[in-house]
Amino acid sequence: MNNYDVLDISLAPSGALKIAWVRDHMPLLHALEDKLQALSPEERPLAGVKLSISIHMEAKTAYLCQVLALAGATVAATGCNMLSTQDDVAAALAASGISVYAIHAESEADYYRHIEMTLEHKPNLIIDDGGDLVNMLHTKRPDLAAEVWGGCEETTTGVIRLKAMQAEGKLRFPMVAVNDARMKHLFDNRYGTGQSVWDSIMHNTNLIVASKTVVVAGYGWCGRGIAMRAAALGARVIICEVDAVKAIEARMDGHAVMTMAGAAPLGDIFITATGCKDVITTDHMQLMKDNVLLCNSGHFNVEVCVTELAALAVSHHEARANIEAFVLPNGKRINIIAEGRLVNIAASNGHPAEIMDLSFAVQYHSVLYMLANHESLENKVYDVSTEIDDLISREVLAAWGVTIDSLSPEQREYLHSWQV
Amino acid sequence: MNNYDVLDISLAPSGALKIAWVRDHMPLLHALEDKLQALSPEERPLAGVKLSISIHMEAKTAYLCQVLALAGATVAATGCNMLSTQDDVAAALAASGISVYAIHAESEADYYRHIEMTLEHKPNLIIDDGGDLVNMLHTKRPDLAAEVWGGCEETTTGVIRLKAMQAEGKLRFPMVAVNDARMKHLFDNRYGTGQSVWDSIMHNTNLIVASKTVVVAGYGWCGRGIAMRAAALGARVIICEVDAVKAIEARMDGHAVMTMAGAAPLGDIFITATGCKDVITTDHMQLMKDNVLLCNSGHFNVEVCVTELAALAVSHHEARANIEAFVLPNGKRINIIAEGRLVNIAASNGHPAEIMDLSFAVQYHSVLYMLANHESLENKVYDVSTEIDDLISREVLAAWGVTIDSLSPEQREYLHSWQV
Amino acid sequence: MNNYDVLDISLAPSGALKIAWVRDHMPLLHALEDKLQALSPEERPLAGVKLSISIHMEAKTAYLCQVLALAGATVAATGCNMLSTQDDVAAALAASGISVYAIHAESEADYYRHIEMTLEHKPNLIIDDGGDLVNMLHTKRPDLAAEVWGGCEETTTGVIRLKAMQAEGKLRFPMVAVNDARMKHLFDNRYGTGQSVWDSIMHNTNLIVASKTVVVAGYGWCGRGIAMRAAALGARVIICEVDAVKAIEARMDGHAVMTMAGAAPLGDIFITATGCKDVITTDHMQLMKDNVLLCNSGHFNVEVCVTELAALAVSHHEARANIEAFVLPNGKRINIIAEGRLVNIAASNGHPAEIMDLSFAVQYHSVLYMLANHESLENKVYDVSTEIDDLISREVLAAWGVTIDSLSPEQREYLHSWQV
Amino acid sequence: MNNYDVLDISLAPSGALKIAWVRDHMPLLHALEDKLQALSPEERPLAGVKLSISIHMEAKTAYLCQVLALAGATVAATGCNMLSTQDDVAAALAASGISVYAIHAESEADYYRHIEMTLEHKPNLIIDDGGDLVNMLHTKRPDLAAEVWGGCEETTTGVIRLKAMQAEGKLRFPMVAVNDARMKHLFDNRYGTGQSVWDSIMHNTNLIVASKTVVVAGYGWCGRGIAMRAAALGARVIICEVDAVKAIEARMDGHAVMTMAGAAPLGDIFITATGCKDVITTDHMQLMKDNVLLCNSGHFNVEVCVTELAALAVSHHEARANIEAFVLPNGKRINIIAEGRLVNIAASNGHPAEIMDLSFAVQYHSVLYMLANHESLENKVYDVSTEIDDLISREVLAAWGVTIDSLSPEQREYLHSWQV
Repeated sequence: MNNYDVLDISLAPSGALKIAWVRDHMPLLHALEDKLQALSPEERPLAGVKLSISIHMEAKTAYLCQVLALAGATVAATGCNMLSTQDDVAAALAASGISVYAIHAESEADYYRHIEMTLEHKPNLIIDDGGDLVNMLHTKRPDLAAEVWGGCEETTTGVIRLKAMQAEGKLRFPMVAVNDARMKHLFDNRYGTGQSVWDSIMHNTNLIVASKTVVVAGYGWCGRGIAMRAAALGARVIICEVDAVKAIEARMDGHAVMTMAGAAPLGDIFITATGCKDVITTDHMQLMKDNVLLCNSGHFNVEVCVTELAALAVSHHEARANIEAFVLPNGKRINIIAEGRLVNIAASNGHPAEIMDLSFAVQYHSVLYMLANHESLENKVYDVSTEIDDLISREVLAAWGVTIDSLSPEQREYLHSWQV
Repeated sequence: MNNYDVLDISLAPSGALKIAWVRDHMPLLHALEDKLQALSPEERPLAGVKLSISIHMEAKTAYLCQVLALAGATVAATGCNMLSTQDDVAAALAASGISVYAIHAESEADYYRHIEMTLEHKPNLIIDDGGDLVNMLHTKRPDLAAEVWGGCEETTTGVIRLKAMQAEGKLRFPMVAVNDARMKHLFDNRYGTGQSVWDSIMHNTNLIVASKTVVVAGYGWCGRGIAMRAAALGARVIICEVDAVKAIEARMDGHAVMTMAGAAPLGDIFITATGCKDVITTDHMQLMKDNVLLCNSGHFNVEVCVTELAALAVSHHEARANIEAFVLPNGKRINIIAEGRLVNIAASNGHPAEIMDLSFAVQYHSVLYMLANHESLENKVYDVSTEIDDLISREVLAAWGVTIDSLSPEQREYLHSWQV
Repeated sequence: MNNYDVLDISLAPSGALKIAWVRDHMPLLHALEDKLQALSPEERPLAGVKLSISIHMEAKTAYLCQVLALAGATVAATGCNMLSTQDDVAAALAASGISVYAIHAESEADYYRHIEMTLEHKPNLIIDDGGDLVNMLHTKRPDLAAEVWGGCEETTTGVIRLKAMQAEGKLRFPMVAVNDARMKHLFDNRYGTGQSVWDSIMHNTNLIVASKTVVVAGYGWCGRGIAMRAAALGARVIICEVDAVKAIEARMDGHAVMTMAGAAPLGDIFITATGCKDVITTDHMQLMKDNVLLCNSGHFNVEVCVTELAALAVSHHEARANIEAFVLPNGKRINIIAEGRLVNIAASNGHPAEIMDLSFAVQYHSVLYMLANHESLENKVYDVSTEIDDLISREVLAAWGVTIDSLSPEQREYLHSWQV
Repeated sequence: MNNYDVLDISLAPSGALKIAWVRDHMPLLHALEDKLQALSPEERPLAGVKLSISIHMEAKTAYLCQVLALAGATVAATGCNMLSTQDDVAAALAASGISVYAIHAESEADYYRHIEMTLEHKPNLIIDDGGDLVNMLHTKRPDLAAEVWGGCEETTTGVIRLKAMQAEGKLRFPMVAVNDARMKHLFDNRYGTGQSVWDSIMHNTNLIVASKTVVVAGYGWCGRGIAMRAAALGARVIICEVDAVKAIEARMDGHAVMTMAGAAPLGDIFITATGCKDVITTDHMQLMKDNVLLCNSGHFNVEVCVTELAALAVSHHEARANIEAFVLPNGKRINIIAEGRLVNIAASNGHPAEIMDLSFAVQYHSVLYMLANHESLENKVYDVSTEIDDLISREVLAAWGVTIDSLSPEQREYLHSWQV
């Protein structure tokens, strides 16, 4: 029997409809589901495994949970962000027999309580998104860490935190850096974020992008995707970076490059994608034009200083659904979308289904890898194996019906020879 | 006292919030509002005029209605599409004292009844969007046409119908072709449609555009905008056209060009923007891949043959909010967004506010023009005067804070001379 | 027997090679050639006609001259720009039996002498490019104008001058505005200029475009093409305009918009495409950064004030082939490409062959039209008939092997009806 | 006293003009030159060092040679490709006192003789481009290898060969993989190749890119750059790859993906950028349309099977300068640009000056690094140090006048912490 703490279990039909939709657009997971369906219970690769998951609770992740359950795991799932949970999807997932603890816009206390409830299933394996699950296992609930064989981390942010733990010798079990797989970060972070951030901004504001000046902080894979689509939608783009090589790359890509203080008075829309904190401060905000839009697509809500803004503002009000307007002492208005949380997932549907299909295929295979190898692994962060990337990439091409060339033996030899 | 027929007047606060938001992003209308506020009632330019409007009932049009009322007109407003009405906005508009007759997803009978109720205010001037208001004045209610001094038409589709009426000598009052103003069709039809169609598709489907094949039928200003943004979002684009010059232009713009029958088996997403009917027929649909997406951004819901599809399909079901899946006898699924009605307005928020600001500034000035000149005009379709285009374009640049060059007397003379 | 004044007739083989190359890439002219070949001399449509042509003397125009000669005309040809003549092509054209008068970098006196020699063939029909031929017929040699039945003009600039003459009642024979054909200006002025200007700048400078700021003066069809390709090559683009609507369009297309005085200190590369004079003055130049590049793609060399720059400069020297560097009193260097003449044709090969194929197909058919209709035409500027545009556009699609849809009778009727 | 074998020393003034031009557009080398000028001979960092260089002999590389000579080295230079040498530049370099052995279009025997003459200067350090210098030191002239302390390799191709040598334990001195520096391959291989390949194709063909189908083999950094600019110029792009992940990336970028056999009948222009051999074979060529264009931007001329084509063809002729047309037995014509050698450098001016400035700054600092460290290095391939990348990237921003943000101590700590 599964437990759950969801807003309203009667919302399940709406959530089930959403899950059915993404299922039809996630061919890799779908093919796995078909394959697993055909197995007897004891043949299922995760039979007997307890798996706890902290992840944005919406249709695509719900479908991943269902596939993992079908693979034999006993799955317990919670959110990884207070705003990203879709209550109907959580209900549908619970109704399908999985233990779910997540409620949209829950309090911070409830959020952490739900993480803890998920861990109380005493997982053997975990899937984390941003690091809150791992963090609790290393701080408040080290008692449960001993039972964990290993896990997988989805994001750049989480991987950075894991590596910091490893450097301090604090990591208590091995983790796979799913984010760093080519089939994940090359696609999810660029094409996924690039589209979903703009989907969210356009839909929540109903404002034109063309003719605007868009300021993007961070020119990593996410920032590149956001900037690429901003220009494609007709905006002029300014990039703020702390890495000089990336700054040069941004300018070669046709963007202007400057400091945030320089960009503040010029921008109409500001988007952070750095993984750092204090990227847009109230000092910057006081330089901005009236009625600008600010949002964040980094994992945590510390990139835009929303707390400091709230303290500084003389008043604030809901300007539109998901948008809060703060009035500065200088009379100018700063519009914050989705409280400075991940704009594409806290105020919209997150990444497109086909993109998450790639990332979740990496997750699935990495879970199997960890299950098979954890005994021989150290308490470190491991890369996804080249074999998994290769396997998945071949499956994508097959799903698309695309055939590519392969090297002949002569070509292969030529590429490894030096005597002509 | 105003009358109204809206879904629920208590929804007004939500609608008022939406109107307040667009008001802050429609600088031309906002400046007009400020100017009109300062006038005494009798100074207001539309004082004593009865104005009936059929238009997509959402925040930006509601704001136009309020500005026209502030200009002194007695305004009665209805929708111009069963699905595009937002009930909270209709409520807010009614609560602000304007006569409103529009309910989302109303029946066809109610739709036409609401148009008729709007006309029963016995307008002197009208604003039409697509031609349904004018049509009723020329067919069912010619008795009311006699009182009409003239009006304005917003769309390509409506203008085509008006010119057909003029050609047959049937038009009973003069109309201004607002659509054909440079400040309207160059921006609304291209940048507005280009963005809002993709906003709607991305938001309603949560699917990736990059890597997909998008088929756009029609390479007029709307189709160009849709295709430009499709490519910008990473799709390969196929254009279907009946005009050879536009077809060549499409190919020069980097798109593939072929017949719809040729494109049908290749496309993942199909969008019509032709103003014609039967653009995607069931013959085409039977050639398509499983699970394709079809939608329309032309004015009427006859571009994609949805009625014929419903007749042909062996079953259908809601696949996601705003999306109906039809299963063909061959087992393939055809997903129709927004019943084949204007995808950007029936299933999303319509054009961005700043774009409609341009179009509605043209509307406002064209209404004044018609008021001032109707006695000297014939029962024909008139172009928006160059003066209005010029005035508005200068105001836009001023609102942006942009300064441009002007010709010196010597340059002006040079441009008109032929003897060097 | 033909006459000629070319640099060196022995260069003919090199020019013939160039003509053979373009012949293989101009399918419309090539098809005409094949058709004309099959006719007996008396069947040829221009049999007995004397045709004088002033046009950029390079491979594509040479091929047009040969096709016109094959159509039965006695052709005399001269250049329309001192720098655009390619001496080997002029030689090849002369060697093929056509009277040619053109030498690269000839003096202004020789240039006008060659125009006059071309007119001394007493043409019945003329083809002009920019208006110098027409001008001489109306000023220095009105005696010859009486023999001219009519002609065709290729450029925006020439058409503007012709309309000025018409407005003053001075035009002595009818002219067809070839430039205004859809199959000409939509392609030649946008895709042709867009590519060939950058081909020339990149090849003559060997400098990177990405990361640069490019200032384009004029956002007509030529300027749009230049700006579109600048952005595509990775530049940030600033547009200078005098027309407010075009200025707004430029900004919606993602470009910055400002005055030339504002752009002068920001640009790295400046390109004029206005048809006006004094677009970049020495006042502007004195605001520029050191070592900027200036060039022009408008018809005449008066857009960039090169003469005034030469007077102001403290020194000048050849900086690279086709580039002259002028040192200002403030020590900064201004690099002028191709003396401020048409950069794409005076310093490179001009428009791509396939583009000129379209324009010259319009020319060919317009010459036939003028021959057939001149007696009934007034001394005015005439548009190219819709039939010619349609014919040519269908031929292009056929040459590409592209099939498009056509309207069914029901669709055609729907588009012209107003009663649903 | 320097020796030289150049075509004609009297061509020096023309070459000197070209060198002066690039000097003004290579700010990093220029700043080095200024700094070195100020040093006494004995202070110069390469004083007493003998340096042999094999590199494309044109203006930018000549300037690098001059800067290295100014740094105190005794420089001997030869080409690295028979077609890429510009004779006037070779003459100017010889006239400036450097030993130069390179003649455009020399025979293969002369090419290798010139490499050998360059090595007979008994270099301590070498700079290689593609690996021919290193190859001769390991095959024909191992006697000279003993004197070599180490060197630097410029290209992907050369690095692959060096790693093959290292893997077999054959490498006799350490080499720095300049290609793999971020400041090299991110810019040179993408923006440099992307622009210069199209500069060359457009200039050599005078054909339109828009509306064409362009097939790019290889989606590494070079292929990405070529494809990006092809699409930007209006082409539809097909990518051929052997790596499935890159193939997916190509499709996400909006390109079609298929095998070369699938692409052969569709393409108008084919470009190879793989580093492999036999990428376009005569089997592929026999599937192609008439009059297609083929060229290569990989280092060696074995990507397009030109030798096999010449054997198969029934005839061939010069179609335009730098273009040879081969007539197949099936009657179709295959146009090969620049004999299948590096199209951007064998038939045009190579990469833009500003791009080579970045690559050559890496070369310069890597030479100093090798001089300082060779005694402690093994006979392996070494990466460019992060410090060099950082130094150069900061200098580029400074040269551009661009300021970027830097991390505060709090931000730096946040990025390395895991406990919130």
